[in-house]
This record gives sequence, C-alpha cells and structure tokens, in this order.
Amino acid sequence: MALMTPEQFEESLKTRKPRVFMNGKQVNNILENKNTRTVVESNKASYAWALDPQYAAIMSCYSPLIDDVVNRYTHVSSSTDDLVKKAEAGTFTAEMLGTCIYRCVGYDAFHALASTTWEMDRELKTEYYPRFMDYLKMVQQKDLSVAGALTEPRGKRNQKTLAWPDPFLSLKLVDKNKDGIVVRGAKINISGAYASHELVVLPQAAHYEGEEDYAIAFAIPTDTKGLTYVCQYSPYSAERDMAESTEELGNPLFGQRETAMIVFDNVFVPWERVFHCGERSYSIKLVTRYAKTHRMTCGGTCKVGFINQIIGASKLIQEYKGLEQTAHINDQLMEMVVLRETGRACGLAAAQKGAEEPEGSGVFLPDETMGNVSKLNICNAFWRIMALAGDIGGGLIVTMPSMKELENPEVKDYVEEFYGFGSDEPTKNIMKVHKLLQHWTAGMHGVGTWHGAGPVMAQKIMLQRVIDYEHEKNLVKQTLNLK
Amino acid sequence: MALMTPEQFEESLKTRKPRVFMNGKQVNNILENKNTRTVVESNKASYAWALDPQYAAIMSCYSPLIDDVVNRYTHVSSSTDDLVKKAEAGTFTAEMLGTCIYRCVGYDAFHALASTTWEMDRELKTEYYPRFMDYLKMVQQKDLSVAGALTEPRGKRNQKTLAWPDPFLSLKLVDKNKDGIVVRGAKINISGAYASHELVVLPQAAHYEGEEDYAIAFAIPTDTKGLTYVCQYSPYSAERDMAESTEELGNPLFGQRETAMIVFDNVFVPWERVFHCGERSYSIKLVTRYAKTHRMTCGGTCKVGFINQIIGASKLIQEYKGLEQTAHINDQLMEMVVLRETGRACGLAAAQKGAEEPEGSGVFLPDETMGNVSKLNICNAFWRIMALAGDIGGGLIVTMPSMKELENPEVKDYVEEFYGFGSDEPTKNIMKVHKLLQHWTAGMHGVGTWHGAGPVMAQKIMLQRVIDYEHEKNLVKQTLNLK
Amino acid sequence: MALMTPEQFEESLKTRKPRVFMNGKQVNNILENKNTRTVVESNKASYAWALDPQYAAIMSCYSPLIDDVVNRYTHVSSSTDDLVKKAEAGTFTAEMLGTCIYRCVGYDAFHALASTTWEMDRELKTEYYPRFMDYLKMVQQKDLSVAGALTEPRGKRNQKTLAWPDPFLSLKLVDKNKDGIVVRGAKINISGAYASHELVVLPQAAHYEGEEDYAIAFAIPTDTKGLTYVCQYSPYSAERDMAESTEELGNPLFGQRETAMIVFDNVFVPWERVFHCGERSYSIKLVTRYAKTHRMTCGGTCKVGFINQIIGASKLIQEYKGLEQTAHINDQLMEMVVLRETGRACGLAAAQKGAEEPEGSGVFLPDETMGNVSKLNICNAFWRIMALAGDIGGGLIVTMPSMKELENPEVKDYVEEFYGFGSDEPTKNIMKVHKLLQHWTAGMHGVGTWHGAGPVMAQKIMLQRVIDYEHEKNLVKQTLNLK
Amino acid sequence: MALMTPEQFEESLKTRKPRVFMNGKQVNNILENKNTRTVVESNKASYAWALDPQYAAIMSCYSPLIDDVVNRYTHVSSSTDDLVKKAEAGTFTAEMLGTCIYRCVGYDAFHALASTTWEMDRELKTEYYPRFMDYLKMVQQKDLSVAGALTEPRGKRNQKTLAWPDPFLSLKLVDKNKDGIVVRGAKINISGAYASHELVVLPQAAHYEGEEDYAIAFAIPTDTKGLTYVCQYSPYSAERDMAESTEELGNPLFGQRETAMIVFDNVFVPWERVFHCGERSYSIKLVTRYAKTHRMTCGGTCKVGFINQIIGASKLIQEYKGLEQTAHINDQLMEMVVLRETGRACGLAAAQKGAEEPEGSGVFLPDETMGNVSKLNICNAFWRIMALAGDIGGGLIVTMPSMKELENPEVKDYVEEFYGFGSDEPTKNIMKVHKLLQHWTAGMHGVGTWHGAGPVMAQKIMLQRVIDYEHEKNLVKQTLNLK
Repeated sequence: MALMTPEQFEESLKTRKPRVFMNGKQVNNILENKNTRTVVESNKASYAWALDPQYAAIMSCYSPLIDDVVNRYTHVSSSTDDLVKKAEAGTFTAEMLGTCIYRCVGYDAFHALASTTWEMDRELKTEYYPRFMDYLKMVQQKDLSVAGALTEPRGKRNQKTLAWPDPFLSLKLVDKNKDGIVVRGAKINISGAYASHELVVLPQAAHYEGEEDYAIAFAIPTDTKGLTYVCQYSPYSAERDMAESTEELGNPLFGQRETAMIVFDNVFVPWERVFHCGERSYSIKLVTRYAKTHRMTCGGTCKVGFINQIIGASKLIQEYKGLEQTAHINDQLMEMVVLRETGRACGLAAAQKGAEEPEGSGVFLPDETMGNVSKLNICNAFWRIMALAGDIGGGLIVTMPSMKELENPEVKDYVEEFYGFGSDEPTKNIMKVHKLLQHWTAGMHGVGTWHGAGPVMAQKIMLQRVIDYEHEKNLVKQTLNLK
Repeated sequence: MALMTPEQFEESLKTRKPRVFMNGKQVNNILENKNTRTVVESNKASYAWALDPQYAAIMSCYSPLIDDVVNRYTHVSSSTDDLVKKAEAGTFTAEMLGTCIYRCVGYDAFHALASTTWEMDRELKTEYYPRFMDYLKMVQQKDLSVAGALTEPRGKRNQKTLAWPDPFLSLKLVDKNKDGIVVRGAKINISGAYASHELVVLPQAAHYEGEEDYAIAFAIPTDTKGLTYVCQYSPYSAERDMAESTEELGNPLFGQRETAMIVFDNVFVPWERVFHCGERSYSIKLVTRYAKTHRMTCGGTCKVGFINQIIGASKLIQEYKGLEQTAHINDQLMEMVVLRETGRACGLAAAQKGAEEPEGSGVFLPDETMGNVSKLNICNAFWRIMALAGDIGGGLIVTMPSMKELENPEVKDYVEEFYGFGSDEPTKNIMKVHKLLQHWTAGMHGVGTWHGAGPVMAQKIMLQRVIDYEHEKNLVKQTLNLK
Repeated sequence: MALMTPEQFEESLKTRKPRVFMNGKQVNNILENKNTRTVVESNKASYAWALDPQYAAIMSCYSPLIDDVVNRYTHVSSSTDDLVKKAEAGTFTAEMLGTCIYRCVGYDAFHALASTTWEMDRELKTEYYPRFMDYLKMVQQKDLSVAGALTEPRGKRNQKTLAWPDPFLSLKLVDKNKDGIVVRGAKINISGAYASHELVVLPQAAHYEGEEDYAIAFAIPTDTKGLTYVCQYSPYSAERDMAESTEELGNPLFGQRETAMIVFDNVFVPWERVFHCGERSYSIKLVTRYAKTHRMTCGGTCKVGFINQIIGASKLIQEYKGLEQTAHINDQLMEMVVLRETGRACGLAAAQKGAEEPEGSGVFLPDETMGNVSKLNICNAFWRIMALAGDIGGGLIVTMPSMKELENPEVKDYVEEFYGFGSDEPTKNIMKVHKLLQHWTAGMHGVGTWHGAGPVMAQKIMLQRVIDYEHEKNLVKQTLNLK
Repeated sequence: MALMTPEQFEESLKTRKPRVFMNGKQVNNILENKNTRTVVESNKASYAWALDPQYAAIMSCYSPLIDDVVNRYTHVSSSTDDLVKKAEAGTFTAEMLGTCIYRCVGYDAFHALASTTWEMDRELKTEYYPRFMDYLKMVQQKDLSVAGALTEPRGKRNQKTLAWPDPFLSLKLVDKNKDGIVVRGAKINISGAYASHELVVLPQAAHYEGEEDYAIAFAIPTDTKGLTYVCQYSPYSAERDMAESTEELGNPLFGQRETAMIVFDNVFVPWERVFHCGERSYSIKLVTRYAKTHRMTCGGTCKVGFINQIIGASKLIQEYKGLEQTAHINDQLMEMVVLRETGRACGLAAAQKGAEEPEGSGVFLPDETMGNVSKLNICNAFWRIMALAGDIGGGLIVTMPSMKELENPEVKDYVEEFYGFGSDEPTKNIMKVHKLLQHWTAGMHGVGTWHGAGPVMAQKIMLQRVIDYEHEKNLVKQTLNLK
C-alpha cells in the first residue's frame, strides 16, 4: 500500500529544507520551532487517520489512477458521492484538529487543474492533462502532502495589473526556455506550506489581454531554490513561544492556523511540472473552479467542524456554572446548532448538486451557486457564533490569568478557589476550556474565517455571474398573463 | 388509470355540500364564490399537472399499494428519493400557483399516520395500520383530494387542557359506541379544506395523563354532518369580492391563501375511519412526525417557490425602471437568491438525511433537525425578502390606484403617462407586476409564512428535544486532554 | 386666537372642491367617502388637540410671526428646543392616530423653504423669503392645514431628466408671465393632500445644467384648477368600502394611510405663491433640508408612536392568551421596546444636535447625520417589529373571519366559543385587537414605512455626502505615531 | 489648584506597593512591567488632559464640594448637563487612548454611592452620606485616581448564595468591631486597579434575607494589607512581553485593556471608609444605579470612541489599497458610522433624559431604559463592526508577519515590496495600521465589549423590570374603543 505512517511522514519532512523566517529570525528546523511544529502535527494527523480503521473510510479511498488506496486529500472527485465524502472529510478533520488540515487547498487545486487541463488539451491541443495526471500519480504513489497557493499581494486595486509600477505584485513569468519557466513574485496568506512536500500554484491576476505572463500554474517541491517563507507572527505565536508547556494554550497541539507569505525569487519550474502557461482565458476557469470547490470546503464543511469545538466548550462551561436550565443559554446553544446545520446543509447541497465539468472530463465539481452560498452564509454565521460563545463563556475568556498561576505557590490557592465556580470540576479543566474559547473568540478566527476562500464580496461577484432570472420572470408573466 | 382530469375533479366537488360561511353570510356554492373559487382552482391545477406530460414526473408516481400511477400528494414516501421528489413537488406547485397547493397538509399527515399506526399496532396490538392503509388505498383509487387539520383554538396557555372551563377548546371525544366515535371542538387556520373531498384530522393537545379523550385521529368527508366552516375574511377577500375582473388582483386566479375554522359539532366518525383513539402517548408521535415532515415542506420547499415569484416580480420592476446596472438592487436580488438557496439546501438536506421511521415500517420521514432548521430559517428569511422586494418595488406597491383607473376616461391618460416610468412596457403590465408585489409584501404572507407549520418557538422546542451535545463535548475533552 | 375648532376645520373644508378619483370613480365629497373620510378625521384631530388643555403644550406654540398661538404644524423651528418639541409632537400624533397626521410633510417643507428662500435672497438678491413669510403668516392666521408634495414619477432611472421622451415625468415649468407660472407634471405617493386647504410643492429632479425648468417650488390651494387626485386603492380600501360598520376595521376612525397621485395639468401659480423658480443649484438644498427634517420625523418620531400601538396590541394578546410569564414573548416585547427607544434616541439626537441653517436665518434644522440615521434604522426595525408582533399575534391575525360573524346567528356561538382563548375578555374585543394587528402586520405599513421620507438608499447617499473621516484617521495616526 | 500633573501622578503611584502577580511571577514594579505600564500610561493621560487647555473643558470641572476645579472623573453629576459632559468625556478618552480610561468604574460607583448613601441616611437614619462625601472630598483635594470593583466569582448559578459550599465566592463580611470591618472574597475582571490610588467596592450578591454579610460597600487604598492582584495574561500580554519595541504592537502605548482578579484575604476596612454594611435591601439599589450609569458609559460613550479608531484604520487601509471608489467598502464604512451614531444617540438620550435620584439628593443619574438600551445595542454593534473592519482590512490582519521582519536583512526587501500594495505610503505605516486592526478585530475586544458593564442578559433583565406597558395598552383600547 502507498500510504505512509505518521512517523514516515515526519521522517520524510526532514528531507525538505525550506527557507523559513518568523518573528525576525530564521527557522532552521520547522519540526522543532514551537509554532511551525503545530502545522507538522496537523499534517501528521492526516496520515494517522488514513491508516486508522476507525477513520479510514473517510480519510482514504481507492484511486483507479494508481489502483491502490490513497489518502482522500490526493484524490480528484469523480462522482457526487466523492464530493459528499469530501465534504464529510472536511468536517471531520476540522473538528478533530480545531484548526486547518492544511491539505485542502492543494486538494481543491487538484480538482481545478484536472478539470481545466483536460479542457485546455481538448480545445487547444495542449498536453497539460497527461502531465498533470502523471504528477498526481506520483503524489499518490509517494503519498505526499501538497499545499496550494493562489492569493497574491497585488498593487493598487483601482489599476489594472499592467499599470502597476511593480509588475511582481502578482506572480509573473520572467523567463521561459526548453527546460522550463522562471517566475518571480509572491503568494500571501498561504496556509501551512512549509510543512508539506509539495506546493501547487494557481494564477490569480490574469484577466485581460496582455496579462499572459500572469497565466501560470505549476507544482514544485516546497524547498525549491528561490522560495522564501515569511511566516505570520501574531499574539498567539508569541504566547506559544513564551509558554512553558503546551497545556497553557487554547489548542495545545495544533494551534490557531499558520500561514506565510511565499516569495518566489526567480524560481525555476521544469516543464513537466507546468500545467498552464500563457493560455490567459483559462486562468479564470482555474480560479472559479478552485473557488467553488474551496468555498464548499470552507463554508459548508470545515467551519461545521470548528463550530462543534465551540459548541462543546460553551456547553461544558454552561455545565460548570450550573446553568443547564437557563433558557437564554440553551437558546444560544441552539442558535449555534442552527447556524451549523445551515452551513452543513449548504455544503451537502453543493456536493449533491455537483456535476461533471467539463462533460467528459471525469472530474466532478460542486454546484457553483451552492458553493458560494455556503461560504457567504458562514462568514456572518461565524462572527455570530463567536459572539454567542463569548456570551456564554463570560468575561473570564478574556480576563483569565496564565495557567501558570496554578503552579504559583503564592496565588494557586486563590486561583483554585475563585475560578472554580464552586463546581466539582477541577479548576484547571475549567480554565483550559475557557482558554479554548479564548482561542476561538478572541483571536485570529473571525477575520480568518471571513477571508479564507475569499471574502463575502468574492462570493457575491461569483453569484452575480451565475444567477439568471429568466425562470422567475416567466413565472410572474404566467401568473399575471402578461404578453 | 386512477387519475382524474381537472374537469372530473371539479365535477366531483359538486357532490360535496360543505356548510360554509364567509363575511357573515353562507356560501352556497364554493365553486362560484369568488374567494372559495381560488381554492378550487389551486386544487384543480394539481390534477392537471399529474396528467400533463411536462409535469407528470414530479406530480405523479407509481404506488405499489394499488399497483397504479397516483397523484404524488397521495403517496407515502418509502425512500429518501421519494422525500427528495416530495421536496421538489413542493417548490414546483408553489411557484406555479403563487399560493398554497392546499394538499400538502393531508399529504404530510399521511406520513405521520402510516408511521404511527404501524407502530401502535406493533406495540399495542391495535389494528389501525391496515385500516389506515385501506383508507389510503381508497383515496388513491378514487384520486381524492385530502385536506388535513391539526391546529386548535386552545384555552389559556398557562393552564393544562383539563383545567380549561370549556373542554372543547381542543377537539374532544364525546361519545364512543360500536359503530364509531363522536367528537366536538374546532380546528383553526385550516387551509382549503372545503374544496377537498376528505379531511384527515390529527390530535394537538393530548400530552398528559387524563387527556386520553383528546388523543384522536381520523378521516371524514368534508361535508360530514356537524361540520361548519367559518372562513377567514381579510382585506384581500374584500378586494376580490369588489373586483370587476380578476385582472385587477395581484394573483388573479389563485389568490392569497384561504383558511377556515372548522367546527366539529358532535360529528360522528365510523370506526373504519378512526386511526387513533385514546392511546395518548402516541399523540405526540403523530404530531412530531407530522411537524418535521410539514416543516421540511413549509420551510425548505414551498417558500422556495414563493420566493421565485417575488424575485421575478422584483427583477421585472428593476428592468422597467432601467435600473439593471444599479449595484444595490443587484445586491438585494442576490440576497434574495442566497436566502432562497439556503432554504432549498436545508429542505434537500432534510429529505436526503431522512430515514425509515420506525424501522421496518416502510415509511420514510425527513430528518428532524434539518426539517426544523428549514422552517426556522425561512421564518426570518421571508420577512427579509418582503422588505427587499418592497424596497425594489418602491412606494407604488402600496400607493397604487385601482387598475380600474386604466379604464376610467377621466384619468386613464394620466395613469398611462405617470405610472409608466417612461418604459416601453405597457403601463398595465407594470401596474400588474406591482400589484403582484403588493400581494406578497403588503398582505397576509409575512405572518402566514411565519406561522404555517408552527412559529419559530415550535421549531426551537423541537430542536431542544433532539439536540445532544455529547459529541461536541468529547471533541473538546480530547483537544484539551481533559480527564 | 387664530386657532380653528375641529368643527370649523370640517366646515372650512367644504369650501374646497378638489377633483378626486378613487377605484375608477369620482369622489364627489371627500367628507363622505369612507376612505377619504379617514384623512379628514386625522386632520381634524390635529385641530382638536391644539385646543385641548391636555395636549395644547405639545400641539400649539407661540408664533412671533403673528404674535399669537398657532398650531405647531405651522411653525418653523427657531431653536433646538423647538426641534425637540417637533419630535415629541410627531410621536404623540402618531400614537394617537395609529396613522399619518398628514400635516408633517407641509410642516417639514416650511423648514426647507424658510431656510432656502432666506439663503437665495441673501446670495441672489431674490425676494422669495418675504414672499414665503407672508404666505406662512396667512397660513398661521387662518390656521390652515397644508400638505406637501415632492416625489415624482420620473422616467428611466438610467437616463438624465432631459433625456426622457416625456419631459413631464417630473413637474416642469411650461409657461411664465407677469402674473405667474404654469406647470405640468405629477407628484406621486402624496399623503392626504385632498383633505388639506393648501399644497406646498418642492422640486425633485433639478440637478444638472439645463434642468432649470424643474427647479420650482410654490404653494397652491388644493382645489386649484388643473389639479387631479388619483387616489390609491388597496385591499384595505376595499375592505373599508365593504364594511357595514367601522367596528369591523383595524383602525376604525383613521384607517391605514391614504395617498394620491396629484396631476398638475397646466396649473397656474401666481408669483406671490412662487418660492423658487429656475435657481437650479438651490433645488438640491430644498430637497436635502426637507429630507433631513422629514427623516427625523419619519425615522425618529412618528414610527415611535406607531410602534406603541403595535406593542400595546401585542401585550393585550399576550394577556388574553395567559402568556404573561412566557419568557420568549416577554423577550420579544422587550426587543420591540429596544427598537422603539433606539428610534426615539436617534430622533432626539437629531433635534438636539440641530442647528441654525444657514447661520443668521433663524431657521433651525435637525442634524443631517442623525436625521438620516434615524430613518435608516427604523426601516429595518419596523419590519422586525412586524415580524415580532406577528409572532405574538399568531396565525389568527391573518386567518380571522369577518367581525360580522359575531352577528351571524348561524355561527356566532361558535366564534364566541372558539376565538375566546377561554379568556374573560369578550371575544369581540379579542378579535378587534387581532384586527388592529392585521392592520399593522399584514398591510401597507411595512413597505410604506420603508419608503416614506425615502428608502434606505436615499439615506445612504445623503450620509455618504456628509461623512468625513479626517478625525478618525488622525486618531489612528496619533495612536501609531505615523508621520 | 488641586490637580496633579501627570508627573506628580506617576510619582505618587510609587508610594503604593500593591501585591501583583502576572504570568506566574510577582510584578515588583507596576511602573516598569511592560503590561502593567500600559495602565499607568492611560491613567497618566487623564491627568495630562485635565491640565491641557485644549481638553480641560471636557476633562475637568468645578466642584462645589471643595470649591475648586477637579478632574471630571471625581465629580458626581448634579445636572443633566453634567451627564452629557460625562458622556462626551467617555468618548473623548476612549478615542484618544484606544483602550479603557480605567477610571470610569470608580466615577460611576461614586454616583451610585452618593445617591444611595443619601437615601439610606434619610430612610434608616444611618450616617453614610456625610462619610462618603468626606471621602470624596479627600479624593478631589488630593486628585486621586480611584478604581471600582463589583463583579465576583460566584458559585453555582442554580444555587442561592447561602447554599454555596464556599461562602467566599462573593465578598463577605467576616468580622466587625469598633474600628471597622474585615472582609474575605474576591472581585474578578477588575480593570486597572493596581495603577490607581484607591479602590471603591460595591456589593454584587446580596439579594435575599440572610445575605446581609454580603451587603457591603467601602473604599480602600490599593495596597491595603490582604489585597492580592492576579492579573490577566493573554496572547496580547505575551506579545508585549516579547516585543523589542512598542512599535511592533497594535496600540503601542496604551495596550488592549488590563484587568485582574483582586483577592481580599481578610482585609480590614476602618469605619470611616465603610459606606454600606448589612442594609441588604439597598445593595440592589447600589448595583442598579451603578449599572445604568456604567451602561450609558460603556454602551453609548466609550465604544463610540473605540469605533472611531476602527473606522479611521479601515479608512486608511481603503486608501492604501486604492479602493476609495469601491461602493461596497464605502457602504461598510457608512454602516460603521451608522452603528456609532446610533450608539452615540442612545448615550446622549440616556444623559438628557437623566434625572435626580432620589429626589432631593442632588445626584443625577442617566435614564434607566436608555442606559440599558445603549449597552444592549452596542454589544451586537461591536461584533458587527469587527466583522466589517476585518473585511476591509483583509486576511493580512491575521496573517501579517512580525514588524521585526522590516529590520531583518534577509527578508526586509521582500516585505517592503509585497506588503506595500504598490502604494506611496511606507510599508511600515501600512503594517502598523493593520496591526492596529489586528488589535481591535482579532483580540480581546469582542468578548470584552460584550461583558463590560454586564452582558446582554443583564440589560434585558433590567429592562424587563422597568418596562411598563400601560400607556401602550391604553392607546390600543382608545383606538378600538374597547371597554
């Protein structure tokens, strides 16, 4: 079987030497740095589940491509049933980790690439599809972890790409020869790439004539020469760096969510890893196919899992406080459930109304309208859930002292006495659950959830494109017998 | 084939002579009274569609019970696929009529009765199930239209049923003999029953010991002796009564939605039509099974169809005014689409997550959580859509003059000139579309949508019963390694 | 004293003979027609209150202009205290009538005219201000009721005024001579004008060069030759026409709110009643000054009064049903109170932050930001309140039978029994309160409230114009020590 | 003049030696610890402004009590004009600091104490009022900074206070002798007390008979023997601890908001500083008077100032990105303005509708309804504003690297290039503004704003107590002519 064990995965990562910077210093070993380690742990879990009999049905599947069982996150959906399983996997990994699985961007990018390379080949007589499928076969056979990258810095939004003084604010082709291409630019807000084996790259800014050099898609190892990772550094990063034990943290093992800007400083990509180069009008297809797939993921699946963590913590605090019979709290918990189930329903509908696209390609993508509706709904829902959980958790969520005080002989008795709500639960547990809610309601997750897979406006633009009102107008004309 | 033509349906109604009152007077012929006629038209359409090749797939299906094609509204779902088709039929009929199909309450009641009579027989050794199936077979063979009734007047809400001075504020058994039972009381807010052949009745108020006499379910012809229909009479009823032509009205043929209070003044029901009598603990099962089925219908299916009418009319007005490029109106139209699709997704999820209940019964019911979530969401969504459509339609929706002014020689030129927006569309059409929006945004639909299938609180109570937080709590304990 | 008694007012109306059409027929006597009568009653009440010792302090005030007590609705505010009293009068009249006072548009137009004629005279050396003050003096001395008119049909919104094929879709100057001017066009959605003595007219569409003929403001008697009123006709109008007694209606005496399109078919206005003619750049000042005044009125004052009627009815139904202790209903009632008080606070702030404009004019106008914020908030609040009241009222609000059934010997006992909730309150009263809620939640008020004083977008546009972010940007620069 | 300079304030703090713990260690010098220093800075600013001619009118006022100018935060309002100025000061300090002024709890507690001690003396013949006024006189003469404390740990919420196994989960009297009283317990979530001179303490849990020992109010120096401060420690605290320069932080000088649990371990309070002791029925008066005053502050004043910081930062980012003409962003900015102005209006209305309470006391308190409405509205508004600002700010808010990277020679050029949006603004400034938004939208402020001055439910409970529906019911009865 092709699947790696989690230990093999960790070992395999040691062969990659990405150039990573965080908090003003180089990170020499991403397996050891406290913050980058959280990404390794998340990724590692995805290897463990695929081999765990309890979770194998959701985290692995049979791939005809290599005639073997593969990790689901390397499989391109070939039926609506695959899409439904994909949705379920998104919820499962999110609720188990309480953070990003880090592999879904690559997974979703595979869908866009399989579909669009097939279409380019058919229409332009290019040879991208077999090239991409060879790459994917290699990924499956070696059971690699693949991150994805799309978002770019971009220049002034009121100017077109070609008008920017600095042409590299989007990733740009700077050279092309018989062996491959050279690109320069950056991708920003990229989740967890340095702890993956591979990086698959999609274009963002090729829209108009003349922008062909921005129409590029490819895959490279994460430690390719010329790549530099400038990592995010948030208050939560500082907290982890300063913690004496992960027990002090809201999500001890897996953290909040780690991203980096990836700089491509004249990076060379050999032709066998180039899947799109200059066919400008297909860039938008790559983007929209990726977008609808990823919006189903981010809107209707992983947030469902996150919400489960928030609901669970809120429920526990309700119980610690003896508020099980308090109507307004039960109402708030139920409101969270309603928002969660609404998200889940939209995600499922996006999968079930999915279709082969283009016809004949064998690639199934979610329904565009429902994919976008999923994400748009969850943007607002998630902030609301944060407010609700914050209400149940109380001021303590943001005023709690360090867990270290529980070891501080001068104050530990006070902390034990006064943060225990007179409950039978150990105060330490109570504080840990509050810490988890701090992590969810007083950190990066509100803004992050809103922008992951694109902000509300991105969904609205896409919906404006696909909505057609003819059916509805005709109903009215029929009802009123208008000519 | 068992199916009646619409003409046969209309003819068959003439054999029923229900005792109907409206606006202080008796309605001697429900086929002729302008307001009751709208119900006849809606019902009639359901017969036409079942025979129309274009719509037969959605409005009819094969019934093993009589080994023949039947109207879908007489078929008890025996698979999730049936539930999905049921959902689609709900949307289809609603968007075609722009009002209630009037047959869904009976249809949903069949589901509750099939499921619960089967369970009673199995657990109590009663013989209700075959009795009900015989009744249903007769309905299918004769292709009858069957209304349903559940809601009751009830007394003071802060008292239990047995404490009410008037015991008949819920429908109550008053006599029982070898031939059948006699009941007294009333059902309120009952949609379109007088234009159906049959009425199927579920209990509402049997909850506690001693309330066995309220635990009754049965079916009777709509003109059974002792039944009296006191019809609603709204401003919209008055408007229809006063109109010289249906062209003056917002929904010319099918109207807003007609209900009546049905009084049961010592009505006799023979045993072969009694499906529940005194088995108190099963009353709540009948109600909750009906409720989740009907909430899928009202929340996730028929309102989707209504919203299509509203969207269509809003879009047409946008075009008449030359506002196609106006961003905030396009945004509002899109918001309506998002609310509609969210409703649709929840309805579909309710169907697809449906299950056989009880196991072995062969009856499939929607998922309880999703059924309730569907309805709860749509309550708020519908008011929001009314506000949005009202914004697009403008003040004219509520300030428009009578369509008669278009025939009034003294002012018709003024009306033509000043209500035409300088558009090429005939002013008459423009006014008719505004009239349709008046019908949707300035009439009975806001409150009606909220309360049909129970108000928000009914969904909340049901959700409180079924939500369980163990899974979510365990996720948190695992994340934090709590013991 | 200049004030008329209500009887004198009614008598004085008989001297006016406006040309009015409703439901396809001419209304020969607006004092007798059931629907136009409601406007007469509302207006009449405003005369009664000004003389009633209990209400005189709010409904009358001293006018230095004529050195006498006048009806407040004829007085131009000359202090923030006047503006606060104006706000309080708006709430008072609305909660007493449960409908439009019909005089506030004229009242608010006086403010815009006093301010802008003063400014035109100062800057252009015109003589409009003394002319307007003479007119106002006459109005106060004769204690006349003055309606106002602004909104126009307009043509295609994507074209400028001069591009419309029909130039009269806005009110337009068609002739001018030494005696006065002649205008043609129409004003739409005009509240209650036919039951006033006078009509004051503001421009709506003069924005760009060349549109000078649309820059007109003036006052005329309501029965001026060439004026035609084409009245709204809604389901509620039909209901009133068909009612045998006003007791059957939701607001027996004062109705919902009556408007008309007023057609100006070559109407002559003598110069002494012309207050603006061709000074195009001042048209927008008239409009925005009127708008902020009227938005304070519609947003922060009269809706506060309407909401009181809705809250009162909801509370009574709660009590009839025995639901006084039901938490979610108490929560809903409180939510209505919060929305009401928020509206009231914004209205008061608009008044208290009001200022003399232009400086030296002696005219006080509300704060522009707060005036617009008031209205914008109330648009959404009112729909929400309708939904909440609809929830408390229950399905009966829209399914209730005619009150006539209480006199129908065949069903009156049933109605008495089954619509009484087992309460001690007479069923008739219970039904009347439901009828009042029908009037508020299932009629013209949602859309009407939204559009009165302009829809949400109108407030947004005005706010965009006046909001300045320099103060906020400087705070950030100071906090971050940015250069 | 009694006012201290900021330097004198800092010097005076050195005379206090509070026992403070943070992150598991004792803080020996609160003027030097990076996190406690932020509180010193905020407090210090309040001294500077009172002496600054530009701000003296808002931050100082004349006190008849000592016949001298005092810092406004030590003055008990004696008119609605004072309340309005109090409201304006709340907004001013908040927008200048971008965090808590830390003195408003004490300021608001003074209002509750002045009012209630006066009432106790009058009704019970106690002598608290002169004692409190002597204390206040001393505070004003010495220009002291006074923190306030109310919130307590409390035990199981489903039990009454006396049923808790640990009686000290609320602050409790444990001894009383001729010199004074001894108390044990804790106050939680207390803002900035360790950097004030004095702490004024109100009761929270005395409601029922037998709970007299919890009915205590008093004032003590902040370093009284037996007091221990266990400080909050959040990710933002860790970030500040790790920063090499305050330039790396979102609010460099003043931080997020610092609170502590204050443990009272058998603290002695002499009688001359005890203002309430055992008069149980007055505890609730102290609490509700404090609450309505503090809710005006937190709801309608300081959040208005915070929102200005958020709006300013959002506007700057819009400009950096070249998005000034983007409609949906302008709409979002305007929505923030509308929410801010709504908050401001409610705060002003609370002040202007304020009244002397009890009559004759000379103490003016805000209107209870409006005070609570202010806070209730802002709870939801603030989360919405966070979401809007997060949308405008973009993913960078939560994915930005450390500002240290701008000094890191290996990546500084990349960061300069790719985080500059092609704008003329230095990248450093751009990043600092994003950091400020991180501080507001991805930190403690959502939950903190919700809970400061009590969560939504606290406002709802208070509103339920004061709302009376008689006026509204009577309006309906009059409209419908009900007997």
